[in-house]
Amino acid sequence: MVSLQNEKVKLWKKLKTRKWREREQMYLIEGPHLAQEAVFSAKEHVHSILIDEAFHLPADWPLDSIEVFQVTHKIFTELSQTETPQGIIAVCDMKSSSLALKPGRFLLVDGVQDPGNLGTLIRTADAFGLDAIYLGDGCVDGYNAKTLRSAQGSHFHLPVIHKNLFTLADEMKQLNIPLYGSSLQGDELHQVKVSSPHYGLVVGNEGNGASPELLAQMNRQVKIPMAGRAESLNVAVASGILLYWLESARLA
Amino acid sequence: MVSLQNEKVKLWKKLKTRKWREREQMYLIEGPHLAQEAVFSAKEHVHSILIDEAFHLPADWPLDSIEVFQVTHKIFTELSQTETPQGIIAVCDMKSSSLALKPGRFLLVDGVQDPGNLGTLIRTADAFGLDAIYLGDGCVDGYNAKTLRSAQGSHFHLPVIHKNLFTLADEMKQLNIPLYGSSLQGDELHQVKVSSPHYGLVVGNEGNGASPELLAQMNRQVKIPMAGRAESLNVAVASGILLYWLESARLA
Repeated sequence: MVSLQNEKVKLWKKLKTRKWREREQMYLIEGPHLAQEAVFSAKEHVHSILIDEAFHLPADWPLDSIEVFQVTHKIFTELSQTETPQGIIAVCDMKSSSLALKPGRFLLVDGVQDPGNLGTLIRTADAFGLDAIYLGDGCVDGYNAKTLRSAQGSHFHLPVIHKNLFTLADEMKQLNIPLYGSSLQGDELHQVKVSSPHYGLVVGNEGNGASPELLAQMNRQVKIPMAGRAESLNVAVASGILLYWLESARLA
Repeated sequence: MVSLQNEKVKLWKKLKTRKWREREQMYLIEGPHLAQEAVFSAKEHVHSILIDEAFHLPADWPLDSIEVFQVTHKIFTELSQTETPQGIIAVCDMKSSSLALKPGRFLLVDGVQDPGNLGTLIRTADAFGLDAIYLGDGCVDGYNAKTLRSAQGSHFHLPVIHKNLFTLADEMKQLNIPLYGSSLQGDELHQVKVSSPHYGLVVGNEGNGASPELLAQMNRQVKIPMAGRAESLNVAVASGILLYWLESARLA
């Protein structure tokens, strides 16, 4: 058992804030399902496991070098970020945030504000097997508790990286990675031919889309044809359709 | 000003529950943005408008036959279903829940539990111009406050109808409307040829998908090809991709 005054407990508590997550390059994920996904898919990134005194850790988890700390119910409740704590938290290292860029398939997220939307974007990028997802300066934190919940473990499958998107767009251009931006002023998808197996897809803020300055850096601005009356699609839905379109062209 | 004992106020309060919404075939929508959309796009369905005593109703809204009630701040707060009430609620009639079925394009939602997901599905169906969205018996209420918020006014653009999906599937078959069901055991989209301009697309519960009994009634079960590691897509993202696929085939 560790006490509230313990230095480790103090650090874990700090990881509930974005500032400290970024400083330490670590974050907390919560609940047996996500902790299991972390331990089985990305063990090298799991720093330690914290369990409520009443929690029984499954015997078949490959914990090897992972430190396990049992804490009192009181401490666990202070560390938890959910309304109904489920007794287990994993302390994880952020994955490869200094990853060197090479040609591949990427989603670039500009100014998305809702953590649930961002988590769904991360899950969608994972489902299509992208190489990384990049979050621009104005984006909600990719490692906050709600984002992690809605991404359902996809953080352990692909790098989730905060980075300035203008710098990144420049780097992608130098590598001849075509950049597509989602925009209501763009060309409809059937008018656009995809000719490279690599791409960077930029999607933007829930209300305003991606910033015009960033869209100006794109090779093409594209738009999903829609026959109906809703002004726009949810950003995660639009991103799913655009990734399906890019992947269909790539695999055709 | 109307008092808390007023019969109208009592009815409005009851409309916060699903039981009373279904009994009265009426619902409440909240906030200036949604109320404006209701008044401008579906005035015939707006029964009355309730405003907080401090709220200033824009002078250019075409209110004609719509009754406007000013209520005290205390009553407004009791009627409101948001954390930060914005001073205006519209009382609306549900649209055409006894609509006669004819060939068209439909989304059928089986057992979706999250109101935010359901609202996004309604918004997506609207964006693609579908003729109606049907919600099966196990679905969360299509008219609850969170669903309405996340649908962003799409309820005023297409009918949102609760109906038994087995009955509906039978009716669609009799009209030769092809039924497609989203299923991880289905055929990948590029293997399936869409040959009718009409369709019913069935999508299902967040964790388990559509029920096997319902999927057994489909003409085809279909699956989005995914190269990555996430086990599945969010139901609204998957539905957006499937509708884009069906619409692209229809319009090609």
